[in-house]
Amino acid sequence: MIDASLFLQTVKTDAFLISQFYNIVYLTSFETLSPHEREAYLFLVQDKKIIITDARYKGEQHSADSELYILQLGEKVGEVIQRLCEKYKVKTVGCEANDLKWSEVQSLQKLGLDLIPINNPLSHFRSIKTEEELFAIKQACHIGDQVLKDITPYIHPGQTEKEIAWLLEKSIREGYGADIAFEPIVAVDAHGAIPHYNTKKGDGVIEEGSLLLIDFGVKAHNYCSDITRMVAVGDVGNDVIKTYSQLLDAQKKTIEFAQKAILLKQIDDYCRDELKKNNLPGYSHSTGHGIGLEVHESPRISAVSTDEKQVGQVFTIEPGVYREGKWGMRIEDTLTVSLQGEIEVLTRFPKDLILL
Amino acid sequence: MIDASLFLQTVKTDAFLISQFYNIVYLTSFETLSPHEREAYLFLVQDKKIIITDARYKGEQHSADSELYILQLGEKVGEVIQRLCEKYKVKTVGCEANDLKWSEVQSLQKLGLDLIPINNPLSHFRSIKTEEELFAIKQACHIGDQVLKDITPYIHPGQTEKEIAWLLEKSIREGYGADIAFEPIVAVDAHGAIPHYNTKKGDGVIEEGSLLLIDFGVKAHNYCSDITRMVAVGDVGNDVIKTYSQLLDAQKKTIEFAQKAILLKQIDDYCRDELKKNNLPGYSHSTGHGIGLEVHESPRISAVSTDEKQVGQVFTIEPGVYREGKWGMRIEDTLTVSLQGEIEVLTRFPKDLILL
Repeated sequence: MIDASLFLQTVKTDAFLISQFYNIVYLTSFETLSPHEREAYLFLVQDKKIIITDARYKGEQHSADSELYILQLGEKVGEVIQRLCEKYKVKTVGCEANDLKWSEVQSLQKLGLDLIPINNPLSHFRSIKTEEELFAIKQACHIGDQVLKDITPYIHPGQTEKEIAWLLEKSIREGYGADIAFEPIVAVDAHGAIPHYNTKKGDGVIEEGSLLLIDFGVKAHNYCSDITRMVAVGDVGNDVIKTYSQLLDAQKKTIEFAQKAILLKQIDDYCRDELKKNNLPGYSHSTGHGIGLEVHESPRISAVSTDEKQVGQVFTIEPGVYREGKWGMRIEDTLTVSLQGEIEVLTRFPKDLILL
Repeated sequence: MIDASLFLQTVKTDAFLISQFYNIVYLTSFETLSPHEREAYLFLVQDKKIIITDARYKGEQHSADSELYILQLGEKVGEVIQRLCEKYKVKTVGCEANDLKWSEVQSLQKLGLDLIPINNPLSHFRSIKTEEELFAIKQACHIGDQVLKDITPYIHPGQTEKEIAWLLEKSIREGYGADIAFEPIVAVDAHGAIPHYNTKKGDGVIEEGSLLLIDFGVKAHNYCSDITRMVAVGDVGNDVIKTYSQLLDAQKKTIEFAQKAILLKQIDDYCRDELKKNNLPGYSHSTGHGIGLEVHESPRISAVSTDEKQVGQVFTIEPGVYREGKWGMRIEDTLTVSLQGEIEVLTRFPKDLILL
């Protein structure tokens, strides 16, 4: 766990206000019920981590190096921060510009606080996983592999996308006591060409000859996995078979290439070039994304990424080929840069087109 | 559906940038996959509703009075807004100060936009439900009632809180094709005294003589319900029985009182006074909250609320009694202010302590 004074040295402010849910979890293990309602702030000053929250969270667990400040009814967070600033003679307070709302900034500034906006101040720390974090991610990946093995025999024509998504979720939760990392995407035929297809709102039904995209993640001990595999239900035709083998080849080569990449942007470039060689179109999403406490976090694997490859990073590689109105395919693995600097693929379910 | 020019008249800016997910849904029916990643903005100008999003959402459904602007790869939202401002000779752009992040504000201001911060500009519109909205909420409440009836026979000593929460969720999803509105809270004995108990992280087991709190919501056609009921598994002792009947009495009287309340704050005051009469302690949460597209939305039913009671509002009334380290109880209903100005309770599952 990062300590407060080390963090304050890197951001060069006297104190720091953390508002983002997952960053609070990362620094203190303290968790409010809802990641998306503002139920706690973390104030870092000197070597202290002070979690400011309300009476509902009295007695809630947190790390030994942090403390809980419980707001009185009617007491405002800003007032507490103001008092802490006086007590510790704080001049500048860093804050997460990419998370703090404008109204929050305005009310803190009204109190006379000198706020310094910093974007994603923890993203670099979080992108390098500790052994425990990696262990949790590996477990999430392993559960995902098992779930795919468990459910594929039950896929058949006549079934809806929703039913398969629910089968997946039930297997993750009932079978393995884990959770979904995000709403599973199960997309049949033309729906597969919509990279962020909303299965819950969709009405797709599997038919004989359908091509099925399954993109899902597991959350185990707070850490996420992400995997995409493709299923052919019966005869999907030569074009699909051929394109799939080209896509698979490109994805595998990209993982090999990642071994020697220095900048993560190179991985994105390489993968797109590989597809181009076979006259396959580009895809509208990035080649991959960091993953950990959140499904999407640092580093970026895209054309605009400036991140370097580093030992301990965990990210996905997930190129796709999309034929609008016909079908879409994507192959995605979660992988890590090992201590030896090598790429270790953590999602192990076979990548060949699953033929049913 | 509120039209753009009507809305712009109320906020008194030339244009308005909506960023909040549910407000975009409310105004255009357009939905991105994740409510919590910024995947779309809505720009209102003259009588136009322009949804700015990326290629992943090409072809996605939206209302007839709105249009989709699909960003090119690399094109920035700010540039699009800047161009729209030039085209429509916009001087002031209102924005949701309580939703827009500081970094977003900074980059828009850098482009020379004159941003006017407004908090919750749609909350008043959203708090008054249309007939269709009310219909969806009633359906969600009705499903919740059915689910309680379905699952209570299966509650028994030895079961974990998690198992019951999962039973609930499965019944909502498999049995009724609806969704959970939030993670169900199932809290046994002392856990019940933690108003925002995290069932998923908890380890509670039902024993003979346990008092069980079940607080859950259903989401149907995008609209939420919220209900809390209490279950006594065997003999829970006289103190619990007596306190429960006092709490129930207070909750019922509060609903009756709500009929004649003018300010919603009065409902909060009244309910706390009723508990005080029986020497019962206060609770650390508010007496209720508005509900609709979100579980928590306008109006507020609390000591600091300034909202008036209005026809078409939907909100909860949910007082509780909490004995730290021993047990907690809460009784919650979702209700609406009908056209006749009367209170209609939408959650109909009987409120007596459920005895198993």
